[in-house]
Amino acid sequence: MILVDGEPRPEISATDRGLAYGDGIFRTLAASAGRPCFWTRHYSKLAHDAAVLKLQLPRADVLEGEVRAVCKDHEACAVKIIVTRGAGPRGYSYTGHERPTRIVSAGPLPPGTIGNRVSGVKVRLCALRLSAQPALAGVKHLNRLENVLARAEWQDPEIAEGILCDAQGHVIAGTMTNLFIGIDGALATPGLERCGVAGVTRERVMEAAGRHGVACAVTTLSWTDVLGADEVFLVNSLAGVWPVRDLDGEPRTPGEMTRTVQQWLGQEDDA
Amino acid sequence: MILVDGEPRPEISATDRGLAYGDGIFRTLAASAGRPCFWTRHYSKLAHDAAVLKLQLPRADVLEGEVRAVCKDHEACAVKIIVTRGAGPRGYSYTGHERPTRIVSAGPLPPGTIGNRVSGVKVRLCALRLSAQPALAGVKHLNRLENVLARAEWQDPEIAEGILCDAQGHVIAGTMTNLFIGIDGALATPGLERCGVAGVTRERVMEAAGRHGVACAVTTLSWTDVLGADEVFLVNSLAGVWPVRDLDGEPRTPGEMTRTVQQWLGQEDDA
Repeated sequence: MILVDGEPRPEISATDRGLAYGDGIFRTLAASAGRPCFWTRHYSKLAHDAAVLKLQLPRADVLEGEVRAVCKDHEACAVKIIVTRGAGPRGYSYTGHERPTRIVSAGPLPPGTIGNRVSGVKVRLCALRLSAQPALAGVKHLNRLENVLARAEWQDPEIAEGILCDAQGHVIAGTMTNLFIGIDGALATPGLERCGVAGVTRERVMEAAGRHGVACAVTTLSWTDVLGADEVFLVNSLAGVWPVRDLDGEPRTPGEMTRTVQQWLGQEDDA
Repeated sequence: MILVDGEPRPEISATDRGLAYGDGIFRTLAASAGRPCFWTRHYSKLAHDAAVLKLQLPRADVLEGEVRAVCKDHEACAVKIIVTRGAGPRGYSYTGHERPTRIVSAGPLPPGTIGNRVSGVKVRLCALRLSAQPALAGVKHLNRLENVLARAEWQDPEIAEGILCDAQGHVIAGTMTNLFIGIDGALATPGLERCGVAGVTRERVMEAAGRHGVACAVTTLSWTDVLGADEVFLVNSLAGVWPVRDLDGEPRTPGEMTRTVQQWLGQEDDA
């Protein structure tokens, strides 16, 4: 089911700036029993990202109502919210008076989403290097060709995710996940000042670590650091926490820290 | 007028990957008396860019027919062609069997397009720095948020264009134009191996210089190099050649080389 500006129609204007320039933002979230999970956090991320692009975000109650409408008949589903700057004439400039377009849709959770939490996932290192753009780093905008190119590097359905580095060889994230390592009883995750998307689940892991007195460094990680970690796990709002069991051909043991983080998140109240 | 997949309807699927990820390409071209200018060159650029993204480009005769249809009632107009990978399910991966979406539209030339060729233009240096992505450099893809952010840096209608540098401070291009300098009787233009869009008119200038025995270096240019040039001009398929008469506050004299390049292009047969 898909709602465009609140209406059950599957089309947008061919002059929408979301299409023309990727001039918009999106977030993907889980819904359970017709209710979006961690809605307040997701809306905060949308609000942050909209502010970076100086686009007007629709009100929280409007979007939440549409999210509930698209997932009302599903026990568990994946919800996607896109907000673009709206339709406009040709040319990069905007007036600030454009009417944003909102596209809210729901679909089934991708196969393996839940099972991978137990079994762990096989991941590969991608050849594509992420570009550095501090003006857009952390924002989940619609310019996602790098993710498309990286995802096209493999066809093997056994590989659940690809890990991306920047041009300096620093590990940044998966194509659709944020990455954490566990080492010597502490956690670490890459800083996202130059590229990458700052996801809600990454934030939840960092906050949970703080509450439980476990150090979580936001830092620079090389591929060697990741290979040398005790544990590696990937997170996003659908997956939750996926332990890595195969790191670009190196077998890994999903360990105690990863299971602990899964428990932390499982116990969280998302009110 | 706008044609989507050949039909006169102004909408696309809300699940189009052009919207979701900017997974597509575009080109803008001039049309005169109902006929696209330099069609073969533009189609070649589209074909190059489609190959980089591994998307199936519609046949040249199909696209050209649609271009002619949208501009048939105009003496002079701006034509925009967008080709996306088409609609698809959520997720970065694609099968390769998607049906591309084509959007062909025409509109009036922006005000000043022709007059600026004589008067010259005022340009500014943008604060935004272009990111480096060799896998996409030169391609006119739909991930254009950097251009949107850069264009939003100024409101003054007297300023026709903004110049963009990369993170190393190398001058790359305008937000919607390619840049040339003239110095000591030779031309130079930035290399586009790491960022920027390789336009048809840039190519025409380089080829015309070759035919006329004028050196044209494709090289690294600093802002200091541009400030120190005898002449600076900007090119794209609508503008043709715009002499720069004010370079971020420095008055410049549109000079002989710029006028010569305008004559070269004006004399070209676009058969």
